[in-house]
Amino acid sequence: MITSVKNKLVKQLKKLHKRKYREEAKRFLVEGYHLIEEAFKSGWEVEMVIVKEDVQPPDWIKNDDVTVVSEKVFKEISQTETPQGIAAVIVMKQLPVALKQHLLLVDAVQDPGNLGTMIRTADAAGFSAVCLGEGTVDPFNEKVIRASQGSIFHIPIYHNDLFDEIENLKAEQFTIIAAHLKRAKHYLDVDYKEKTALIVGNEGAGIKEGLLEKADEIVKIPIYGKAESLNVSVAAGILMYQMRNYLHKN
Amino acid sequence: MITSVKNKLVKQLKKLHKRKYREEAKRFLVEGYHLIEEAFKSGWEVEMVIVKEDVQPPDWIKNDDVTVVSEKVFKEISQTETPQGIAAVIVMKQLPVALKQHLLLVDAVQDPGNLGTMIRTADAAGFSAVCLGEGTVDPFNEKVIRASQGSIFHIPIYHNDLFDEIENLKAEQFTIIAAHLKRAKHYLDVDYKEKTALIVGNEGAGIKEGLLEKADEIVKIPIYGKAESLNVSVAAGILMYQMRNYLHKN
Repeated sequence: MITSVKNKLVKQLKKLHKRKYREEAKRFLVEGYHLIEEAFKSGWEVEMVIVKEDVQPPDWIKNDDVTVVSEKVFKEISQTETPQGIAAVIVMKQLPVALKQHLLLVDAVQDPGNLGTMIRTADAAGFSAVCLGEGTVDPFNEKVIRASQGSIFHIPIYHNDLFDEIENLKAEQFTIIAAHLKRAKHYLDVDYKEKTALIVGNEGAGIKEGLLEKADEIVKIPIYGKAESLNVSVAAGILMYQMRNYLHKN
Repeated sequence: MITSVKNKLVKQLKKLHKRKYREEAKRFLVEGYHLIEEAFKSGWEVEMVIVKEDVQPPDWIKNDDVTVVSEKVFKEISQTETPQGIAAVIVMKQLPVALKQHLLLVDAVQDPGNLGTMIRTADAAGFSAVCLGEGTVDPFNEKVIRASQGSIFHIPIYHNDLFDEIENLKAEQFTIIAAHLKRAKHYLDVDYKEKTALIVGNEGAGIKEGLLEKADEIVKIPIYGKAESLNVSVAAGILMYQMRNYLHKN
């Protein structure tokens, strides 16, 4: 059992809280039974499970891959307020991206909760993939993983410059729809094709002007009350389900 | 200028981080220009503005109501990671509730971000009010206020036991719709009346079984991918906009 917070492994694990080290190590941390189970069931490599001394590791993990640590050490590794006492190191992988139908393109969304929630909704709505443009929070950030409730293990997520990606998608006969409040059509009045990519933008600034110009259609969800706008993950949810419903009703 | 964190006023302000003291004082704290401005423009009493020494108070506030504090003291009062250096004490008030059309009933939602986001969406979708059942996070919690983006100042929010509230609403000819994944009708196949109240439930446990039994209709948003469910504020957003759209298309 590891009892020293100065232990080499503990230091390495703590480094995985930073994007730079995650990318170098090609590994990331997840916490809690549910998420670790989701990673395992979805075929991701669970390289190591770390448990607090009084916590039972899941029975599918080999004994060699379990590391027991003291409560103090677990607190050092954990990033949650009320840790369940179980964490795991997962090996990154890229799920294959098939450009068949609906895609979500994310322009510089910075809040991990928002990104994780949108990944969860894209998964739920049966989208093919999520493309992350520059300035977007790292999907392997633990808060993103938690908000995704494990959907990061289900749906392909990839990175690309969105200007390049829009070019690619147009060459593949995709229609590009941007969610924005100005110069926009009511979202219920749009003809959503099977190959449609929805762009959503940064919480404060919205979608970059240059990207808006590349879109085939700008759509808005009307505001009836005194709120200035919707939360981006709520707006994305309403639009993704509208796209999905439209496809199956028409 | 207040420079001591042991100052009596500073201690009182810090107490407002706790629900119990907010309720006793009938006052709450908000941070940032935007939210303070929203409170003021919406006619809430901004009793005191607290600014960090180098920060300019808004011009509509009387000089007598401005308290200047040192950076160290501001950090003590602030609950945000990157404070803007301006906070305010707002006097609680109850906006009048008119049971005219759509309502949102919240059963034990515990995440402040989720509650704040739902209040923001209810405002945006033109709902009449939001009723908070027992076990729901305090709407005057600063994270709720921040996630609501000021909508807590626009839309009436009230507390009631949801069993009692459902009785009241039924007597007022309301239809009660509950969002739940089991024994449920597809949300697009429901006839939403003008007087409809939507119940949404706790993040983990969903809506209490007893409340589900009181509902006139249980509705679900289908899951097409591998996600187990939607985030409650996304699901509420999809349903609230469906209710709104249905009303105006039929």
